[in-house]
Amino acid sequence: MSEHPEAPVVPVGPYEPPYYVAVFTTVRTQDQSGYSETNARMEDLVKDVPGFLGMDHAQTPGGLGITVGYFRDADALAQWRSNAEHQVAQKRGRAQWYERYTLHVAKVERSHGFTRA
Amino acid sequence: MSEHPEAPVVPVGPYEPPYYVAVFTTVRTQDQSGYSETNARMEDLVKDVPGFLGMDHAQTPGGLGITVGYFRDADALAQWRSNAEHQVAQKRGRAQWYERYTLHVAKVERSHGFTRA
Repeated sequence: MSEHPEAPVVPVGPYEPPYYVAVFTTVRTQDQSGYSETNARMEDLVKDVPGFLGMDHAQTPGGLGITVGYFRDADALAQWRSNAEHQVAQKRGRAQWYERYTLHVAKVERSHGFTRA
Repeated sequence: MSEHPEAPVVPVGPYEPPYYVAVFTTVRTQDQSGYSETNARMEDLVKDVPGFLGMDHAQTPGGLGITVGYFRDADALAQWRSNAEHQVAQKRGRAQWYERYTLHVAKVERSHGFTRA
């Protein structure tokens, strides 16, 4: 999304359940050197995971960041979790970029969407 | 949270699975009259639901809003969903405040948290 700031913002739509969400909520440190490059690389990499459905991100300035990743099944999520480059990024996140975070991995049971007519 | 802007931002922590998340992603319209009052009222009301665990919210300026509500079980979520005042607010949301939204309701299977030492 950062590559297309002019594009309209569209949240990931509802998929047919079951599918998986990974809800990642973060508070970042003062030292964000290298973060945006790594984040852009992760956004690219995850797209190569078979079963990756999409990602939503919102960031309140100076506040909480929420990233939600959507995956077709547990295998897709496991593949992303075990990606070597992603694991290096996670480790650096704990060492440098994140003050706190929580990860909730959940199986979607129902979903729906609304678009203004 | 809006009542305590000076408080540190802390994401909802990991609970013992299973529990439920409701991931609500939104794009808002130009007409936001009445939104903040209703939103504040909903934030108060949901706290009275037995089994409500917490809520995270992030909003990119001019972009996507993500609200994640955490509930102990499906009954707690059902109670919130059927709350009469909440239903009126949902209806007004579709009529006035939201351009698009998606709701994903999911059962958490695993979770973990990190806090900088």
